Amino acid sequence: MARTRVAVVGASGYTGAEIIRLLAAHPHVEITALSAKVEKTSTLGEVFPSLRGLLDIPVKSLDVEEVAGACDLAFLALPHGVSMQFVPEFLKRNVRVIDLSADYRLTDPGLYQQWYKREHTSPGLIADAVYGLPELNRSAIAGTKLLANPGCFPTGALLALLPLLGEGLADAGSITVDAKTGASGAGRWPGDALTFAATTGNMRAYRVACHQHQPEMEQELTLAAGNDVRMVFVPHLAPMSRGILSTAYASVKPGTGARKLRSLYEAAYEGEPFVRILPQGELPQTAGVRGSNFCDLQVMLDERTMRAIIITAIDNLLKGASGQAVQNMNIMLGLEETAGLEGRAIVP
Amino acid sequence: MARTRVAVVGASGYTGAEIIRLLAAHPHVEITALSAKVEKTSTLGEVFPSLRGLLDIPVKSLDVEEVAGACDLAFLALPHGVSMQFVPEFLKRNVRVIDLSADYRLTDPGLYQQWYKREHTSPGLIADAVYGLPELNRSAIAGTKLLANPGCFPTGALLALLPLLGEGLADAGSITVDAKTGASGAGRWPGDALTFAATTGNMRAYRVACHQHQPEMEQELTLAAGNDVRMVFVPHLAPMSRGILSTAYASVKPGTGARKLRSLYEAAYEGEPFVRILPQGELPQTAGVRGSNFCDLQVMLDERTMRAIIITAIDNLLKGASGQAVQNMNIMLGLEETAGLEGRAIVP
Amino acid sequence: MARTRVAVVGASGYTGAEIIRLLAAHPHVEITALSAKVEKTSTLGEVFPSLRGLLDIPVKSLDVEEVAGACDLAFLALPHGVSMQFVPEFLKRNVRVIDLSADYRLTDPGLYQQWYKREHTSPGLIADAVYGLPELNRSAIAGTKLLANPGCFPTGALLALLPLLGEGLADAGSITVDAKTGASGAGRWPGDALTFAATTGNMRAYRVACHQHQPEMEQELTLAAGNDVRMVFVPHLAPMSRGILSTAYASVKPGTGARKLRSLYEAAYEGEPFVRILPQGELPQTAGVRGSNFCDLQVMLDERTMRAIIITAIDNLLKGASGQAVQNMNIMLGLEETAGLEGRAIVP
Amino acid sequence: MARTRVAVVGASGYTGAEIIRLLAAHPHVEITALSAKVEKTSTLGEVFPSLRGLLDIPVKSLDVEEVAGACDLAFLALPHGVSMQFVPEFLKRNVRVIDLSADYRLTDPGLYQQWYKREHTSPGLIADAVYGLPELNRSAIAGTKLLANPGCFPTGALLALLPLLGEGLADAGSITVDAKTGASGAGRWPGDALTFAATTGNMRAYRVACHQHQPEMEQELTLAAGNDVRMVFVPHLAPMSRGILSTAYASVKPGTGARKLRSLYEAAYEGEPFVRILPQGELPQTAGVRGSNFCDLQVMLDERTMRAIIITAIDNLLKGASGQAVQNMNIMLGLEETAGLEGRAIVP
Repeated sequence: MARTRVAVVGASGYTGAEIIRLLAAHPHVEITALSAKVEKTSTLGEVFPSLRGLLDIPVKSLDVEEVAGACDLAFLALPHGVSMQFVPEFLKRNVRVIDLSADYRLTDPGLYQQWYKREHTSPGLIADAVYGLPELNRSAIAGTKLLANPGCFPTGALLALLPLLGEGLADAGSITVDAKTGASGAGRWPGDALTFAATTGNMRAYRVACHQHQPEMEQELTLAAGNDVRMVFVPHLAPMSRGILSTAYASVKPGTGARKLRSLYEAAYEGEPFVRILPQGELPQTAGVRGSNFCDLQVMLDERTMRAIIITAIDNLLKGASGQAVQNMNIMLGLEETAGLEGRAIVP
Repeated sequence: MARTRVAVVGASGYTGAEIIRLLAAHPHVEITALSAKVEKTSTLGEVFPSLRGLLDIPVKSLDVEEVAGACDLAFLALPHGVSMQFVPEFLKRNVRVIDLSADYRLTDPGLYQQWYKREHTSPGLIADAVYGLPELNRSAIAGTKLLANPGCFPTGALLALLPLLGEGLADAGSITVDAKTGASGAGRWPGDALTFAATTGNMRAYRVACHQHQPEMEQELTLAAGNDVRMVFVPHLAPMSRGILSTAYASVKPGTGARKLRSLYEAAYEGEPFVRILPQGELPQTAGVRGSNFCDLQVMLDERTMRAIIITAIDNLLKGASGQAVQNMNIMLGLEETAGLEGRAIVP
Repeated sequence: MARTRVAVVGASGYTGAEIIRLLAAHPHVEITALSAKVEKTSTLGEVFPSLRGLLDIPVKSLDVEEVAGACDLAFLALPHGVSMQFVPEFLKRNVRVIDLSADYRLTDPGLYQQWYKREHTSPGLIADAVYGLPELNRSAIAGTKLLANPGCFPTGALLALLPLLGEGLADAGSITVDAKTGASGAGRWPGDALTFAATTGNMRAYRVACHQHQPEMEQELTLAAGNDVRMVFVPHLAPMSRGILSTAYASVKPGTGARKLRSLYEAAYEGEPFVRILPQGELPQTAGVRGSNFCDLQVMLDERTMRAIIITAIDNLLKGASGQAVQNMNIMLGLEETAGLEGRAIVP
Repeated sequence: MARTRVAVVGASGYTGAEIIRLLAAHPHVEITALSAKVEKTSTLGEVFPSLRGLLDIPVKSLDVEEVAGACDLAFLALPHGVSMQFVPEFLKRNVRVIDLSADYRLTDPGLYQQWYKREHTSPGLIADAVYGLPELNRSAIAGTKLLANPGCFPTGALLALLPLLGEGLADAGSITVDAKTGASGAGRWPGDALTFAATTGNMRAYRVACHQHQPEMEQELTLAAGNDVRMVFVPHLAPMSRGILSTAYASVKPGTGARKLRSLYEAAYEGEPFVRILPQGELPQTAGVRGSNFCDLQVMLDERTMRAIIITAIDNLLKGASGQAVQNMNIMLGLEETAGLEGRAIVP
C-alpha cells in the first residue's frame, strides 16, 4: 500500500516536533515536507536537536505551492491567527488540513474575534471545519477536509464533562474546571514569565475565568447538553514540563448515585482506545500518561454535597495536541485509529 | 526583659525544625529544651543537618518532667494521636502548649474519632483549646493555655472563605476548594509514594473529598456562616517541596458586585500583618511566600456565572504550620505579633 | 518469521518496565512470561500502572521451571546478588540470559566480593559471560548465552573514554569522571534518602571514589589501554528523574591536537547507530536523549592545560540499562540492531 | 548608634533583591536609596513582588548625584560593563562601593578585555580594589573603598582549593573544578535558553573551559600558590534555581595523608563563621545552604590515585553574591561579621 504523503508546517515548535516524532514511526504515512520559520533551509536536527538524524528532509521556509504539491495532507502547527493565512491556500490546492491552532474551532466568528483579538479572515470556511475530538465526532472527522484540532485544556475538560452533560445529569450552572498544566503549553519560546527560576517550585493561576479556551469548552458542552452552558474555568501553571490534570466539579441531579455515574462513563467510553477509566480508588496522574496519547479518567460522587468530581490526566502535547492530531489523521485516512500511537507513558 | 523559655518537642521533623529556625532569630524568647525521637542524646546538627551549630542545646528523647521544668511554653510538633498523649502532662505542670497536631482542633470528639480513626484520650480538654487562626480568634488566643494550631489546608482555605461566609454572601451549597500542595506537607519521612522519581513532573489529586482537614474547615466555616456549611475539598500534590495554592469557588448572592467583594476582603484583613491582598490583576504564587509567614490573596468575581473565585498562597510550613505557631506564641505572650516573622520570601 | 519468545523477570521495577515497554513495540520478539515479587498473580497494570492494558500476560511470582519453559531468552532485571541465584537455572534449561545486574560483569570474583559485599555463588560462569557494551564487544555478544549488561555509569563513562584509552593518548593517572545522575538510578523503592522534598532543588555527591561501578569501569579501561588504569569516579545526584551526564577529564600526550582528538572519536564511532558525536559547539544534554537509546557525545581539548574533556549524555534507563539490553538482544538474535529502539527523545 | 546609610543600585535583579532582603533585617544599617532600570519611580513591590511592603523607599532610575548624597556605602548589583560606568562617580563623591560585577576583580585589564570583550574604562582604579573573599583578604577588606565582590563560581572553587594550593600540596597542573549551578546564576531575565521546559529534568555543561570566571580563579590560586596555576573549569547547569556544588580534584604530593589534608582545612578555616567543614562521612548539599551564607565543605583523599577531592556547596545568591557582599560590608564598617547573616538554610 502506498503511504500517504504528509507535510508538517511549523516543524520547530513543540507540537510540530511531536507530530514528526510520532509520524516517523507510523506504519502508513510518509513525511514529505517540513516547514518552519527558518532563515535558511536547515536540517531537522538544526531546528530541533533531539530529532537529529530522524528524517532526511530539509526544513524550509514555508512555500505553500511547493508543500501542497508534495503532500496529500498537511498538519499546521502554527500560532493562532497565522494558521488561517494558509489554511485556505492548502484547501484550494486539494490538500486536507489538520489545523492545531484555534482558528477554526469556534463556530461563531464573533466569538473568535472577541477572544483572540483579531478578525477572522476566512469565516466562510468555519462551517466546513470539524471539531476533532474523536470521542465526540468520529464519523464527521472521517469525511472532513478541514480538521480543527481541539485545544489542550478543552480536551481534558470535555472528556471529563461530556458524558455528564450529554445525559442531562448536571446542574449547568454549577460547572467548574480547575486545570493544572505544564509549562510546555506556552510553547518553545514563552518569554520571561516562564524562566526556570520563576517557575520551579511554584504554583500559580493565570487568566482566571478569562482563558481563550473557555468559549471552546462552552460551545461543545452547550451542544452536548442541548442548552446554554456557562462554566468557570481556572487554569494553573504547575512546575512540570508536560501534562494537564483537570479537576471538574458539577452538582448532579438528586437521585444520581455513584454507581450510575460510573456506569454512565463506562458506557460513554466503551471501546474508546485512548480513554482509560481507572479502577475505583485509583486517581489519574499526569506522569501516568506522559508521552502517550491516553486520557486517564476517574469519576467520583461526593454524596454529602451531591457533587460529581471527575478528574482527567492527559499529556498536553499528545492527547492535548499532536497525538490527537495523528489520531484524527488516522480516522481521516481510514487507518487503524491507534496506528503510531500505541506507546505507553515514559515512567518515571 | 527576661526571655520566655520555650521547648520544641518533635525537633527532627520539618515543622519542628522550622520553629527552631524561626525562634533562634526571635528577639524575645529563648529555646531551652529540644526533644525528638532519638536513640541517644544528639546535637541539633545530627538530627537536622542544616541547623548545624545554630543552638548549643542537646536533642533528647522526650522526658516530660524535665522539659516541663525547663520551659514556660512548649511547641508540640508531633503526629496526630501522639500529641494528645503529652498535652495533658504539660498543662498539668503549668506549661502552655502550642499543639501543631490535629488533636485539639475539632470541638466534637466524635468527629475526631471518625476522621482520625482513634478515640480521643482527653476529650475534656478540647473545650479549653483555642483554634489558633489569629485573623479569626486573636483575643481568645491571647489568653489560652492550649492552642490548637490550624492545619495547613484549613489555613489557606479559611483565609480565602471566611470573609465571604461571615458576611452571608455565599451560597453555602456551592463551596469548592481545589488545593495544590507541595510534598513537604507529608512530613520528612513520607514513604514510597513520595519518592522524587514518582513526584517530579507529576500532578495528582489524593483523598478526594475525604481529606482529614475537611471537617476542620467545615467547623470553622459553619461557625462563621452561622449555619451548616458542607464543602467539597480536593487536595492535589504538586511537584514542589513547599507551598499551598488554594483556589476557592463559591456562588454569590445576586447583586453582589466585584467592587463590593473586594471591599469586603479589604475590610476583613485591614491591619492584618500577614494577609496581603494583592493589587487587582496580580495573582498569588506559592513562590511569592516561600519561607515567609505571609498569605497572599486575590478575590475575583466571574460575573457571567456569579461565582467568586478567591485564591490564596501560603508556605505550608510557615503560615500553614510553624510560622503561624510562632505568630500564636507572640499573641499568647503579649509580644509584637510579627516578632521573628518579618522575613520576606526566598525568591527565586 | 516466528517471533522469539522472551521473558522479563523483575517486571515491576523501573528497568523491567522499560524492557516491557520497548519489547511491546518490537517487531520480532514476543513477551511470553512476566515475573516479579508479587503476593499473588497480577495484571501488568497492577504492578506498573502506566503499562495498563499493554500486554495480556499475568505477572507471577518467579517459577524458573515455568518461565524457562515459556521462553528462549530471559531478561533478568533483578538486584545484585539476587540475579546469580537464577542465572545458572536458566542457562541449565537452555535459556539465554541478559542479566541487568552486576553479578557477571566483573571477571574477578574477588573484586565482586570486595565491592558487592557477598561471595559469588557461580564464579565458574563468569568466564562465559560477555560484557554487553555493543560498541566494544559486538561480535562476542552475538554468540553468548550469558550477557552481562553494563551498569549505567560505566556505559556513559566508557563511551567517553574508550577511544582515548584505546589509542594510548591519555595519561592513565589523570583520568577523572564526574557524573551526574537522575534519581531513577536508585530504583523504584529507594528509601527515605530520595524523597521528593529532600531531592528537588538539590545537588550532592555520594559514594565519592567508592561507588561499586568503579571497578567495572577500570576493568574495561584497563583492557582497552593494555595497562593498569586507575581512575577517580565521583557520582552526583541531580534533581531529575532520568539521565546521566558524564564529564570525563584526561591529560593527553603532548602533540595531540583538537582535530586529531575529534577524528579519533569519529572513527571509533563511525557507523554506530546509537552514539551521536554532536557538531562542534553543541553540548550533550540529558534531555536530548530522554527516553531514547542514544548516547550524545562531545569531545574537546583544552589546549592551555592539554586536558581532553569528553562529555556524554545517556538515559540511564535506556542506553544505561533496558535500551542497551534490548540492543544486546537484537545482536544476540541476529536482528537489526536498532529494532524497537528507533525512537527519539521526549522533548521537552 | 547611628545606622550607616546604604544604597542598593540594581534593586530589581536577583542579587539586588537579596541584598535588600538581608539588609532589611540588619541591625546596624539603613537602606536610604534604591535604584533600578525603571520607566517611572516605583514601589519595591512593583519591581520585586515578594518584597512588597518591606521598605517604604521608592525605586528610582539611577541618579548618581542623588544616590551618593543619600548614602555612605553603595552596593552595585549591575551587569558587567555597566558597573564601571558608575563606580568612579560614587568614589569621587566619597561613597564606598561594593561592586558585585566582575569589573574590578581582575588585576590585569588586558585579561578583563580578553574575557569580557570590552575595554576597561577605569583601569587606574583596579589597583585600589580589594578582592572580597573574607576568608582570604579580611584585613584588606576592612580598609578598602572599592570592594570587588567575588563571582559565584570562584567563591565555591577558591574555598575548596585555597588551603591546598597555599600549602603547596597540589600538583598545579592537575587542578580540575567541575561545578553545578542553579539557573538563577543567569539572572532574572536569562532569555530563551533557560525556559522551564528546556531546563527541568536536564543536566548540561556550558562554556566548557572558557567561562569568564576562570581567569578570576586562576588569578587568586596563582597568588596563593606563588606560581602560575592553570586549571580546567567546567560549569554545568543543574535543574534547580539556587546553589552551586563545586567538585574540585587535584593530585597531591606523595606522602600526603587523609588526616593531614583534613587538618590543613580545619586549620585554614578555624574560626571562620561561614565555612563549615562537615564531619567525616557527610557530604555537602546545595539544599543544606539554600538561603544562607554558609559554605559547606568536605575534603577527601583517594589514596589509590593520590587525588584530593574537595566539595563545596554554597547558595550562589548568598555566599556566592549578596550574602558575601553583606559580609564584606560588615567587615568594611567594623561590624560583627555575621550581623544580618545568621539565618540557616530553608530546608526543604
